[in-house]
Amino acid sequence: MQDVQTSFKVKTSRHCELVDITGDVRRAVGELGLSDGVIIVYVPHTTAAVTINESADPDVARDIEDKLSELVPRSTAYRHAEGNSDGHVKSSLVGCSELILVEGGELVLGTWQGIFFCEFDGPRNRTVLVGAR
Amino acid sequence: MQDVQTSFKVKTSRHCELVDITGDVRRAVGELGLSDGVIIVYVPHTTAAVTINESADPDVARDIEDKLSELVPRSTAYRHAEGNSDGHVKSSLVGCSELILVEGGELVLGTWQGIFFCEFDGPRNRTVLVGAR
Amino acid sequence: MQDVQTSFKVKTSRHCELVDITGDVRRAVGELGLSDGVIIVYVPHTTAAVTINESADPDVARDIEDKLSELVPRSTAYRHAEGNSDGHVKSSLVGCSELILVEGGELVLGTWQGIFFCEFDGPRNRTVLVGAR
Repeated sequence: MQDVQTSFKVKTSRHCELVDITGDVRRAVGELGLSDGVIIVYVPHTTAAVTINESADPDVARDIEDKLSELVPRSTAYRHAEGNSDGHVKSSLVGCSELILVEGGELVLGTWQGIFFCEFDGPRNRTVLVGAR
Repeated sequence: MQDVQTSFKVKTSRHCELVDITGDVRRAVGELGLSDGVIIVYVPHTTAAVTINESADPDVARDIEDKLSELVPRSTAYRHAEGNSDGHVKSSLVGCSELILVEGGELVLGTWQGIFFCEFDGPRNRTVLVGAR
Repeated sequence: MQDVQTSFKVKTSRHCELVDITGDVRRAVGELGLSDGVIIVYVPHTTAAVTINESADPDVARDIEDKLSELVPRSTAYRHAEGNSDGHVKSSLVGCSELILVEGGELVLGTWQGIFFCEFDGPRNRTVLVGAR
């Protein structure tokens, strides 16, 4: 059995932005040739994260962005001098990885679930890793 | 080696409610016949989550419900028109999966740890997936 | 293929404290002899957690501690009588496990990423499990 890993790029356009990457993850699973198992979607950044939430209505992602920014506002009132501590805090709250079951080559997602890259210090060019075995 | 997956149902009774599902997960591991490895407990819903926390004193779960509802109150002041955006936000904060080690057919949990289904838009009938390999 | 598991101890010194355990996890992977795959870093406590965030500037960890304590303050205004409900809530927000890819015996971490044990009811002596297969 082979351990496999691939990656793709995400270009973000706002400071706090959820980007639907379900299609990218699906392509990665196809590329890895995984039929059954579990994949890990991993974000190797410290002011970003990955979450699974509703992808049908884009307003849900906007509500999540707004509420997270209300709870952890962008501010210079932090110790870390780069001014992006809000992004670091949001990253630890949401988390930098998600696990998804794969069955018959398909992602096992609930009816309304999509996978979102969470940018918390954009705009930036980011990388997402997808690992499987 | 076989990839295996099973599921069980959870019936919730309140808008925001933590339900102890440790026994259900234990039964699922027995059903899967898993002896050693890792299981993923996965919630295929976008206004629900799964967490691991203290199961000895039920007040802990109530405190978590109350604090989450204070941080992310139920409100119509969101874009998403269904009135359950608080549930979507809570879902991304807590997360829709947990990983648990299994040793000799038993869940490797800390002394005080139990597994909780987190309902954030109930009451509803929900499904929990348990995958292993 | 063998399922393997090891553990190490963490001694914390404050009520809310992020401790960099990247070196401990690296040693655990070496001890397990894992070359390629995924490890799970698991905290078997209910007032603690594990997160991945910036390890270069220690101010980032302090900012996370401070912001979490502002969102979920230590208080006796909870049901649970032990006075550490803030720690239980923080634990469910941050989460008790992280997954990390391993390639050629090395942790696959982003440039700025380190692994942090999150103490939310210290000071205490704690245990961290590292599982792999």
